[in-house]
Amino acid sequence: MLDHPMVPGSTSAIEPGPWHYGADYIAVYFNGEVPSLRNLVPRPFDVDGGTCMAYVCEIVSVGDSGAEMVASRPDRTLYQEAAVGVKVRFGEKPGIYYPVMWVTTEWSLLRGLLNGYQKRLADRISMTKLHPLNPGLKPVSPGSRFGGFCAKGPERTLSLEVNLQRPGTAADLPAFGSTFGMRRFPRTDESQGTVSEPVEVLKSNSRVSDVWLGTGSLMTELDVGRVEPISGAVYRSGFTISGSRALK
Amino acid sequence: MLDHPMVPGSTSAIEPGPWHYGADYIAVYFNGEVPSLRNLVPRPFDVDGGTCMAYVCEIVSVGDSGAEMVASRPDRTLYQEAAVGVKVRFGEKPGIYYPVMWVTTEWSLLRGLLNGYQKRLADRISMTKLHPLNPGLKPVSPGSRFGGFCAKGPERTLSLEVNLQRPGTAADLPAFGSTFGMRRFPRTDESQGTVSEPVEVLKSNSRVSDVWLGTGSLMTELDVGRVEPISGAVYRSGFTISGSRALK
Amino acid sequence: MLDHPMVPGSTSAIEPGPWHYGADYIAVYFNGEVPSLRNLVPRPFDVDGGTCMAYVCEIVSVGDSGAEMVASRPDRTLYQEAAVGVKVRFGEKPGIYYPVMWVTTEWSLLRGLLNGYQKRLADRISMTKLHPLNPGLKPVSPGSRFGGFCAKGPERTLSLEVNLQRPGTAADLPAFGSTFGMRRFPRTDESQGTVSEPVEVLKSNSRVSDVWLGTGSLMTELDVGRVEPISGAVYRSGFTISGSRALK
Amino acid sequence: MLDHPMVPGSTSAIEPGPWHYGADYIAVYFNGEVPSLRNLVPRPFDVDGGTCMAYVCEIVSVGDSGAEMVASRPDRTLYQEAAVGVKVRFGEKPGIYYPVMWVTTEWSLLRGLLNGYQKRLADRISMTKLHPLNPGLKPVSPGSRFGGFCAKGPERTLSLEVNLQRPGTAADLPAFGSTFGMRRFPRTDESQGTVSEPVEVLKSNSRVSDVWLGTGSLMTELDVGRVEPISGAVYRSGFTISGSRALK
Repeated sequence: MLDHPMVPGSTSAIEPGPWHYGADYIAVYFNGEVPSLRNLVPRPFDVDGGTCMAYVCEIVSVGDSGAEMVASRPDRTLYQEAAVGVKVRFGEKPGIYYPVMWVTTEWSLLRGLLNGYQKRLADRISMTKLHPLNPGLKPVSPGSRFGGFCAKGPERTLSLEVNLQRPGTAADLPAFGSTFGMRRFPRTDESQGTVSEPVEVLKSNSRVSDVWLGTGSLMTELDVGRVEPISGAVYRSGFTISGSRALK
Repeated sequence: MLDHPMVPGSTSAIEPGPWHYGADYIAVYFNGEVPSLRNLVPRPFDVDGGTCMAYVCEIVSVGDSGAEMVASRPDRTLYQEAAVGVKVRFGEKPGIYYPVMWVTTEWSLLRGLLNGYQKRLADRISMTKLHPLNPGLKPVSPGSRFGGFCAKGPERTLSLEVNLQRPGTAADLPAFGSTFGMRRFPRTDESQGTVSEPVEVLKSNSRVSDVWLGTGSLMTELDVGRVEPISGAVYRSGFTISGSRALK
Repeated sequence: MLDHPMVPGSTSAIEPGPWHYGADYIAVYFNGEVPSLRNLVPRPFDVDGGTCMAYVCEIVSVGDSGAEMVASRPDRTLYQEAAVGVKVRFGEKPGIYYPVMWVTTEWSLLRGLLNGYQKRLADRISMTKLHPLNPGLKPVSPGSRFGGFCAKGPERTLSLEVNLQRPGTAADLPAFGSTFGMRRFPRTDESQGTVSEPVEVLKSNSRVSDVWLGTGSLMTELDVGRVEPISGAVYRSGFTISGSRALK
Repeated sequence: MLDHPMVPGSTSAIEPGPWHYGADYIAVYFNGEVPSLRNLVPRPFDVDGGTCMAYVCEIVSVGDSGAEMVASRPDRTLYQEAAVGVKVRFGEKPGIYYPVMWVTTEWSLLRGLLNGYQKRLADRISMTKLHPLNPGLKPVSPGSRFGGFCAKGPERTLSLEVNLQRPGTAADLPAFGSTFGMRRFPRTDESQGTVSEPVEVLKSNSRVSDVWLGTGSLMTELDVGRVEPISGAVYRSGFTISGSRALK
């Protein structure tokens, strides 16, 4: 078996899909400024009103035939992610486009690039974790605070905080529609082939639990214009990604 | 406020205690060989029969007055730990002594050294994590496998695996008694003061949940002699450490 | 400016080329077994006799218009690399193909993938460094030993050692010819475009200095068959890569 | 052999001293504000006028009997360091005290704590490195810029830059006198022993080369008051530390 980094296989950087995800999110919803956001979103997607989302999360992920890797190679099944997403439209179709998504492992970086996410590698992503048996921590309740940050080189690329007010349901979380992306594999010479295609990520099996709602705040080095926070949320989510479909 | 690394304070490496812990463990119980173990355990502790324990865990920890750091500085409240412990006696008192305990953060390293643990810094500790919403993972059940490893420089210092057989209770977990340690702060010159004292760690508030029992296996670079696995367990645990008491 | 990971630009993961390199190498030349090596080398390249090379190195690299980044963003100009290369032919043209090349930074990973290297991300690459003013170290001389290793997850993917015997010149280093690669950007859905093309890396400005020759040994997790060391070398090298040309 | 972290020995975190160092420095000299600096310097040391030094450096270090580790365990012989030092007096004796010194490895952290340095662990220290064979880089000359930074958690604890003006000699570098420190090993319980003693680091074999002088600038999270840069320098240095002597 060839050990090629971007060819799914047993010794490669990426397991064959579909890929399954279970994630714990700390999310802040906010309005950015449309002119700034337009610089972050490529054609054929259109910025839709300025609504955005930022989050940090921890993800347990396995390939469809590789669930046993949680035990044999746990480093290949757990990562942290931080991202900023912008509400967009593709024609009439509403969705979210992530101008940048930082992750902590090689395989989530490369898998994401293949699916059209603008992934970058973080040096460190850290976020609030509670533990029900820790004698010094209270259960999640109104007033609980959750925070997280992403550091890369000399920069803190994103930090955010959520103050919980009340439990909620999946229906309370803002919905953006489809997840859009851009698959890009540029040339370094005129003789080479290239890929540059807008895509829609193929997501299924979505489920959400443990929703808490509240207020949020954030700072990011990404130029989204002035940030006007809308709300914050903490929740768990699961889903499957089978790949992404090129948009014509 | 002085930023001294080993003086508890708001800008120092270590928050003032007591310190509270909530941890998720993957543990393997085994017999090592007494002559090898004797080389790992200092006086005044005596190796007691050869029973040992190895584990990897993830720990959420806060200082008594610093619970808000889970949100403001999550990197100061979460770490991974891997360790090998040996059943010992101090006189008639039974307990466990850990010849080495690898951790992933500065503050757990230094806090541990002050309390008498033989802590070392790992490059990486990774362990099985499941997520209830991941569509590709099954709930914990008989046959579930958990694994973890610790890497440091060119070495895998510890790796272990547990195969679950049945749920259990705290009473099913082997009990070792007290946790013993050695506080050491050696001289680099004859003019200096020094500390070298056996201690008993002052633990309270212990609670355990989510116990599963099964078989275990492990590999470690620590010379414990031939390893004869006894059993394995996965569980959650919480406790408080207020410090450690010097043993006379 | 879009912050797209694989579109060269000021805020992207990769600066526009050409890219300039200055590197310090510890290299071991060896014979592997042809049947094993054939599993590591894709068509249209042919394994040529079994000669191989493994190395660890530290590289200072800048984009053509980004030399000031050595001061403003030093983390974007320095990385470590470890690799195993196999002597091959493309038709009649001799060269070397690297089945795997581990690196320590995002930008060297992505830049390499665009140029056709099978890059992977290392957790850690470490190698001998001497310092002329260190009172405890002797100058390089016959008998000096150099070593290095690459760690990734629980694995030591490569470790090697060279024992110096005599100074040499660039002409003493085994020559492989061209540097070949495979640019790959696979599909995750039938609707997507894809790239899979053999390339020749466009290297120029090559220069070599500080050559020492000796014996070598290595261990690697890559299945190259039985390893029969030929020789070892330590040297410095500089070169420019402008991209890679697709091979027809 | 016991694997105790702070007892020098072959399997411990620290090799027996004396320890030899070869370092490449990027340094900025500046005036801070005395009232702020007084909060950073413990008794019995007195802030002396407000002159300070900040640096980032890369260090090759070996124990007296462990020079072969540069080849067998290179990860135990190379680290990066960043620090801020304050000109002080101990009675009539002039010197420098470092309120904080960030390092990238366990062994430099623990060795430093034993010798009285207020060491902390950095997530990342990065600094300008040039390479004489890199076709895109010019030789060091007037106008060359050097920079570096230290990141820890969400913070950039120190960043600095030096603009070279002219070559110099060791005599051109500001001299501070002795290097002072505080050995601290605090109690976590009244029953425990403790160490808290001012020390003078025992340095010998000092040599300096490759000095360049220029202007400097810096930012640090350490509260040194308003920073008024004096000058900057880039140089190489070697020295031996045998330990530290307690001051009465």
